[in-house]
Amino acid sequence: MEPQLAKPLETVDWLNSSNPISLESLRGKVVLIEAFQMLCPGCVSHALPQAMKVRQLFNEEDVAVIGLHTVFEHHSAQGTKAALEAFLHEYRISFPVGIDAPSQQGPLPKTMTAYQMRGTPTSILIDRNGYVRKHKFGAEQDMVLGAEIMALLREQQAAPLIETPSEGGHIGCTEDGCVIGGEENEGV
Amino acid sequence: MEPQLAKPLETVDWLNSSNPISLESLRGKVVLIEAFQMLCPGCVSHALPQAMKVRQLFNEEDVAVIGLHTVFEHHSAQGTKAALEAFLHEYRISFPVGIDAPSQQGPLPKTMTAYQMRGTPTSILIDRNGYVRKHKFGAEQDMVLGAEIMALLREQQAAPLIETPSEGGHIGCTEDGCVIGGEENEGV
Amino acid sequence: MEPQLAKPLETVDWLNSSNPISLESLRGKVVLIEAFQMLCPGCVSHALPQAMKVRQLFNEEDVAVIGLHTVFEHHSAQGTKAALEAFLHEYRISFPVGIDAPSQQGPLPKTMTAYQMRGTPTSILIDRNGYVRKHKFGAEQDMVLGAEIMALLREQQAAPLIETPSEGGHIGCTEDGCVIGGEENEGV
Amino acid sequence: MEPQLAKPLETVDWLNSSNPISLESLRGKVVLIEAFQMLCPGCVSHALPQAMKVRQLFNEEDVAVIGLHTVFEHHSAQGTKAALEAFLHEYRISFPVGIDAPSQQGPLPKTMTAYQMRGTPTSILIDRNGYVRKHKFGAEQDMVLGAEIMALLREQQAAPLIETPSEGGHIGCTEDGCVIGGEENEGV
Repeated sequence: MEPQLAKPLETVDWLNSSNPISLESLRGKVVLIEAFQMLCPGCVSHALPQAMKVRQLFNEEDVAVIGLHTVFEHHSAQGTKAALEAFLHEYRISFPVGIDAPSQQGPLPKTMTAYQMRGTPTSILIDRNGYVRKHKFGAEQDMVLGAEIMALLREQQAAPLIETPSEGGHIGCTEDGCVIGGEENEGV
Repeated sequence: MEPQLAKPLETVDWLNSSNPISLESLRGKVVLIEAFQMLCPGCVSHALPQAMKVRQLFNEEDVAVIGLHTVFEHHSAQGTKAALEAFLHEYRISFPVGIDAPSQQGPLPKTMTAYQMRGTPTSILIDRNGYVRKHKFGAEQDMVLGAEIMALLREQQAAPLIETPSEGGHIGCTEDGCVIGGEENEGV
Repeated sequence: MEPQLAKPLETVDWLNSSNPISLESLRGKVVLIEAFQMLCPGCVSHALPQAMKVRQLFNEEDVAVIGLHTVFEHHSAQGTKAALEAFLHEYRISFPVGIDAPSQQGPLPKTMTAYQMRGTPTSILIDRNGYVRKHKFGAEQDMVLGAEIMALLREQQAAPLIETPSEGGHIGCTEDGCVIGGEENEGV
Repeated sequence: MEPQLAKPLETVDWLNSSNPISLESLRGKVVLIEAFQMLCPGCVSHALPQAMKVRQLFNEEDVAVIGLHTVFEHHSAQGTKAALEAFLHEYRISFPVGIDAPSQQGPLPKTMTAYQMRGTPTSILIDRNGYVRKHKFGAEQDMVLGAEIMALLREQQAAPLIETPSEGGHIGCTEDGCVIGGEENEGV
């Protein structure tokens, strides 16, 4: 399967950034997109701290780390900018976070739908040329992620790393993350 | 210092309980009150899982576990019942949780003020006769809490265990919890 | 099942103690015996640190903590006093540790055999009157152990807490501990 | 500082390998050498599990993982092949481990001395051409190590990554590892 050009982020707002961020503006960098929900336990305990480690380990000139708040459940509880702002403040998350644009078609926001994410957390790695090279739902080992980012940093022309999304049957949140399922899936 | 009778809980609503809960109705049981905020990292990672362990270890006839949502910052983000409901659902917290009553005098809610809590998480142990026997801000070891609850369960007439609240100088949230401070304190 | 009087410790040597320790000399105290092997991963990562927490939490006048080195495999590697001494030093274990007496009948040492232990770690709680009240193979939660010790400290005349040893089928070491099995079991 | 050619391993025996292993035979691969002692807590809890993760993550054709048992204290307790063999078995360590050759000049074994290691654990990364590119005493983050190994795998001609060993003043073992110091240092 050929790597695909990363689709544009469709967001309604940004935190920790004075301007909206487009993937085009990040060409030349490796990009980590961490899609999360503030009430997703696996995001809070694992994926977001891991993304912060990436932010601290790699140079901003080489690697961009972007959060994407993809609310697909409990919209009234976690869907406001004020709630997200308080969350980022309390959890000391300093990288830019975009708020995925709500859709009229269903509970899944637009970027989440465009990327066919299965739930949160989802980690996406984009290479210097703008191609999606990793798309993983759930927890990833630190060592694996560190190695993959470095591989993208050092590559000339690399082979695809994309995981084929498996056909999951889970519904709701586990320790690893929150899966889209049941009625929430109908709109897709 | 003599143990004091536990002051009444002043709440505006309850989750995981069909009725409001009064401390009077729990006389004869040992009561653990876990005061928390849903956006307090130390509450989420340590205090609430610990309270769930207490719930699972001890018999409901002997030990009551009660959460108290004492919002003293980020009111718009974590102050709604819907937000708290979603949080309890995602984090699998099944014991009753009261929403501390907001005050007109300042950002601290009423029960939090009455108990002179320093921040969240705060753990309070009440004996079978309704007296406060432990009042601790921040993280406690599981082994200590298990031993203290058992001591209260087995006691006839016990000596006070109350900690004198130290004069803290911290402001904001650390790994252990969120401290009242700065302007938030002015209204008290 | 009635609690049984704890059988005597049959040891060949002691570390962290100038004299051999008998259970009779500890009557009036609650006693925690932590049976371990220095090459048992579950003992090193969980049971021994937990026993050190018990040592630090409870008063020595009330609770005695005793290690028992019950070597039943790798005798040449972990069977010498020098090896155990170095281990206790490096892992900062300060409570007294008895070396279980080797048996002529098989690989299992004498106290381990007398107590019918299934492997390491095994935690044994003895009440103030010298009766075995808990006998558990494998990992125990800190909160449970803290509560049980306090229950024994506060009791007048308590009901037995002994677990009926389950009929385990495991052989070898897991994260939880090392089980007696296979050829090592033949001598029993 | 220019990278140096890795000095030869001076060993007296090997476990998990039917033959002695020379660094020359590994030219073309990235090599991780994990120097440890079986009674070093930081080695057991962090460095050796981390080395096993490296073994599992990277291909054996690309990355060699080698343990080096560098006993510099408690020689009688951890200095025998039988003790090390039992340890490797219980902790499920499957990569080859060389036993550093004892020296007549003092307690430090020969390879440890030649590499000027400060204690255990020490992690050494060697590039495909046989040059030492990382030399670190104490704990390293998984993400960092994963990224560094991948950088060496992908490099054409890379800049040195060697850390200048700091002038440590510690003696004995901490959570991070065991430092050479005091009388043990005299022979060096």
